Amino acid sequence: MSERGAAGPGPAAIQVSRIMRPDDANVAGNVHGGTILKMIEEAGAIISTRHCNSQAGEPCVAALARVERTDFLSPVCIGEVANVSAEITYTSRHSVEVQVNVMSENILTGAKKVTNKATLWYVPLSLKNVNKVLEVPPIQYARKEQEDEGKKRYEEQKLDRLETKQRNGDVIFPVINPDRQTKEPHTVSYSQSSLIHLVGPSDCTLLGFVHGGVTMKLMDEVAGIVAARHCKTNIVTASVDAINFHEKIKKGSVITISGRMTFTSNKSMEIEVFVDADPFVDEPRERYRAVSAFFTYVSLSKEGKPLPVPQLLTETEDEKRRFEEGKGRYLQTKAKRQAQMQQAAQQ
Amino acid sequence: MSERGAAGPGPAAIQVSRIMRPDDANVAGNVHGGTILKMIEEAGAIISTRHCNSQAGEPCVAALARVERTDFLSPVCIGEVANVSAEITYTSRHSVEVQVNVMSENILTGAKKVTNKATLWYVPLSLKNVNKVLEVPPIQYARKEQEDEGKKRYEEQKLDRLETKQRNGDVIFPVINPDRQTKEPHTVSYSQSSLIHLVGPSDCTLLGFVHGGVTMKLMDEVAGIVAARHCKTNIVTASVDAINFHEKIKKGSVITISGRMTFTSNKSMEIEVFVDADPFVDEPRERYRAVSAFFTYVSLSKEGKPLPVPQLLTETEDEKRRFEEGKGRYLQTKAKRQAQMQQAAQQ
Amino acid sequence: MSERGAAGPGPAAIQVSRIMRPDDANVAGNVHGGTILKMIEEAGAIISTRHCNSQAGEPCVAALARVERTDFLSPVCIGEVANVSAEITYTSRHSVEVQVNVMSENILTGAKKVTNKATLWYVPLSLKNVNKVLEVPPIQYARKEQEDEGKKRYEEQKLDRLETKQRNGDVIFPVINPDRQTKEPHTVSYSQSSLIHLVGPSDCTLLGFVHGGVTMKLMDEVAGIVAARHCKTNIVTASVDAINFHEKIKKGSVITISGRMTFTSNKSMEIEVFVDADPFVDEPRERYRAVSAFFTYVSLSKEGKPLPVPQLLTETEDEKRRFEEGKGRYLQTKAKRQAQMQQAAQQ
Repeated sequence: MSERGAAGPGPAAIQVSRIMRPDDANVAGNVHGGTILKMIEEAGAIISTRHCNSQAGEPCVAALARVERTDFLSPVCIGEVANVSAEITYTSRHSVEVQVNVMSENILTGAKKVTNKATLWYVPLSLKNVNKVLEVPPIQYARKEQEDEGKKRYEEQKLDRLETKQRNGDVIFPVINPDRQTKEPHTVSYSQSSLIHLVGPSDCTLLGFVHGGVTMKLMDEVAGIVAARHCKTNIVTASVDAINFHEKIKKGSVITISGRMTFTSNKSMEIEVFVDADPFVDEPRERYRAVSAFFTYVSLSKEGKPLPVPQLLTETEDEKRRFEEGKGRYLQTKAKRQAQMQQAAQQ
Repeated sequence: MSERGAAGPGPAAIQVSRIMRPDDANVAGNVHGGTILKMIEEAGAIISTRHCNSQAGEPCVAALARVERTDFLSPVCIGEVANVSAEITYTSRHSVEVQVNVMSENILTGAKKVTNKATLWYVPLSLKNVNKVLEVPPIQYARKEQEDEGKKRYEEQKLDRLETKQRNGDVIFPVINPDRQTKEPHTVSYSQSSLIHLVGPSDCTLLGFVHGGVTMKLMDEVAGIVAARHCKTNIVTASVDAINFHEKIKKGSVITISGRMTFTSNKSMEIEVFVDADPFVDEPRERYRAVSAFFTYVSLSKEGKPLPVPQLLTETEDEKRRFEEGKGRYLQTKAKRQAQMQQAAQQ
Repeated sequence: MSERGAAGPGPAAIQVSRIMRPDDANVAGNVHGGTILKMIEEAGAIISTRHCNSQAGEPCVAALARVERTDFLSPVCIGEVANVSAEITYTSRHSVEVQVNVMSENILTGAKKVTNKATLWYVPLSLKNVNKVLEVPPIQYARKEQEDEGKKRYEEQKLDRLETKQRNGDVIFPVINPDRQTKEPHTVSYSQSSLIHLVGPSDCTLLGFVHGGVTMKLMDEVAGIVAARHCKTNIVTASVDAINFHEKIKKGSVITISGRMTFTSNKSMEIEVFVDADPFVDEPRERYRAVSAFFTYVSLSKEGKPLPVPQLLTETEDEKRRFEEGKGRYLQTKAKRQAQMQQAAQQ
C-alpha cells in the first residue's frame, strides 16, 4: 500500500470508500478536486485523532497543520468509487505525518486508477484546552531508514511552514470583486472571485473549529470558478501546492475565500486563493488571514484532452510580478518532474 | 387549515414535516429563515406540479414566479419539528396560487406556534419546451367569493410583477466587496457581502433550472451575514418582501448573491439582496440579474428579546436615497399592520 | 391508510413528502433504499417522540430499537415525490410500534406506487438521563383485536431482539479490505467493502446519539457498493431483514460500516452489514458492534427487468457456512411469501 509504512492496513491504517454523487462533480461529470481533498483530510483526521488518543492521557483532537503539494493524476467521475486509504508514516513529539492514497474505481468495469497521493501533518490539541498541544505516542518503524526519512520530511516541512507564516503575516490582500461587464476578458480582475461561508456545526471538529478539509473544499470551489471564468470550458484541478494552516477558524465565523489568477502556461492556470476569517460574533478579534494556497487547473475538451489556455493579461505592476513568480514555480515543478522521470527511467 | 380553500387536506393539499438539525440553524440555535423558505417552496412546487399535470396533456413542471411578502412570526429552534402544509387556493389560466402554513412544534412539550404564512405563485412550463407556458386546470371553489378574492389577489400581484420587472431591467448594480478593515463600522460598505455558488444538479428541477427555494435560501444566507456584520449579535429573519422570479437560472451557472443594508429602524434592519447569474459554460449569454428582494432582520438577546440596532451610517447620495426609500417601506408596513390590528379588534 | 390503525391522519399520524434529487439516487436514476429508510425513520422518530411526550411528565426522545423486515416493492426515480406517512399502531409499557407507508408519486403522470411498508419500534429515553427508559402513554384502539394483534407482534419482536443480542455479542469480525486487483472476481473478498464516517451534529438526535435512519442509510450505501462490485450492473435494494439497534452511537464517534456478500440466488444477493463504533475521544470505551443486518439486492437491466446474478464463490469454511445460512433465510422468506400469496388467493 505504501513504500513507507508497515505492511498493509494494520492498526494504524484506515480505509474510506464512497460513491461519487452528482453534487460532488461539475456539469461535465468530473468530481471536484475539493471533494477529494475533503475525503483525504477526513481520513487523516480520523487516523491521527485515533492514534493520539491511543494511550491513556488527556483526550485530544488532531488538527490539520499542513498538506504537502499534491497532484491530481486522473479525473474521477460520478458513479465511481473513491477509495481513500490513510496510514501514519511518521511521528515527531508533537505532530503526526499521514500518508493518504486515493484510488478511483469504476465498479462496473473494475478499472482502477491512482488519483492522488497526499501527505498531511496533524497536531494533537487538548479537548479541554484548545491552545495546548499534547504529546504524540511514537509509532514503531519496520526499518530504521523509515524513521530517518520521516525525520527528514519533518524538518523540511517545518522550515517551509515557518517561511509561509512570515509571508502570510497578518496583512490582508483584499480581492476586489469587479464589475465584470466593464472588464476586458482574460485580465486578472475579470476572473477574480470571492465567496463567503458561514461556518456551521457540520463544518467543525469536536473542538468547534473548522475541519481543514472543509476549508480546502471551499478553496477549490473558488479556484474552479476563477478558472472557469477565465477559459469558459470544462476545467479540472491539476495540483495544489503545499498548504499551511496557521490559524484556526471558529464555529460561527464568516469566512471569505477569494481567488485570483496569477499565471498561465500554454495548458495550465495558477490561481492564488486566500481564506480570511471574521469571528464577528462574541469575539473581539479583527478579520485575519487563516490560509492561503496556489491551485493549478487545466482545461479539458469533451474527450478529456487538455486544451490550450487563453494567456492571462496582466495590467498592474503587482500582477506582472506575481506572473513572474508563478512562472518560477511552474518551471521549478516542471524541472523536478523531469528529474524524477529520468531517475525512474534509469532504474 | 385555511380560511380560503377546501376544509382540511384534500387531494389538493400536501404536508411536509422535518426535524430541524444543527445545520439548519445559526450558532444561537435559531433556524435560518432560508431553511423555512426552502421547505415552503418545495411543498409549493410539489403541489402545483401535481395539479398542473392532473389532466391529460403535455407534461409540465411548475416554476416559482413570485412569493408574496411573508413575516416570520416566531423563531424555530433545533430539535423542533417544522410542519409545512400547502394547498392550492386559486388558479388563473396560466398560474397557480399556493397558500403555505408553517407551524413549529416542540415535540417534547407539545407546544405549537405559527411560524409563517406564505403565498406563492407558480407557472407550468412544458417539459419539452421550457419557454412554453401551459394552461392550468381550474380548481373548484366551495364558495363563489373564494374565486373572486383569488382573482383580486391575482390581478394585484400581476401589476406588482410588471413593475419590478421594469425596475430590475437588465441593469446590474455590482456590490463591491470592501476591505472591511479600513471601513468605519455601521456604514453600508462595512457590512455589505456577497457569495458565489456553482449551481449543482441537486439545486435544480427536472427542467434543469434552479428551484426558487434554493435561491431564497442563499439570499437569506447573505442577508444574515450582512445583518450579523452590522450588529455583531444573534440575528434572525423577521420578514421578506415580495420576491419576483423573472429570469430562470440554468444548471452549471455561477450565481453571485450580494447584499447591502439599506435602512435601519430602532429595532430592525432592511437588507437588499441581488442574485446575478453567469451562465458561462456553453452559453453565449452575458451575466444577468435573476432576482432581487428586501429582507428584514432583527437582533435578539440571549433571552430572545429584540435588541436596539446600531443606526446605519449613510455616506453617498445613493445610500441616503435608498435609506429614505427603505423608511417609506417600513412606515407603510407598520401602518398596514396597525390597520389590520384595529380591524381585528373591532370584529 | 392502514388496516391496523385509525382512519386517516389523526393526531397520531404524520406525513412527510419530498422530491427525490440526483444525490438521492444511483447513476441509473434509481433512488437508494437508504434514502427511503432514512425518511421512514425520521417520520417514525417524530411521531413516537411526539406521542411519548403527550402526557405531563419527564421529557423524552424516542430512540429506534428495531425495524422489522421490509421489502422494497418498486424502485423510485429522481424527480418523483416520496410520500411517507406514519402512524402509531401499538404501545407496550416501554415501547411504541409505528407503521410507515411509502408511496412514490410521479407528479407528471399522477401515477402512484406503494414502495414500502415498514414497522418500527421506538423506546422513550429520558432527556435528562439517557439510560432511563420512560413509560409510554397508551393509545386507544378502535377494536379490541387491534390491541391483541399488536401485543402478539410485540412479543414476537421481543424474542427476536433477545436472540440477536446474544448473537452479536461484542465479538467483532473485521472485514479487511482486500487488494481487489489480485482477487478472483465473484469471491467474497473481492466485493467486500467498508466505509468510515465521522459522526457530526446533524446526524444526531437531541440526546446526542446517531439517528437510526442515518445508520441505515450508511449501511445501504456499503451494501450497494458490495452488490455493484459483485455484478457490475445497476443494482437496487430489494429488502432489508429486521435490524435491531442494541447499542447507541455517540456524537463524535467514528463508525466503520463493513459489508460482505453471504449468499446469492439466481436473481438476488444477500449482503451482511456490520456497524462498529469507536468512541475514541473522551471515552475509555473500546470499539464495539453497534448494529448488524442483512440486505438483499437485485440486479436490473436498463429496462428495469431483473438480471441473473453471478454465483458467489465461497473459499473458506466460514464463507460456506454463511452461504448455507443465507440459503436458509432465502428459502424461508420464499416459503412465507408463497403462503401469503396462497392465502390471499383463497380469500
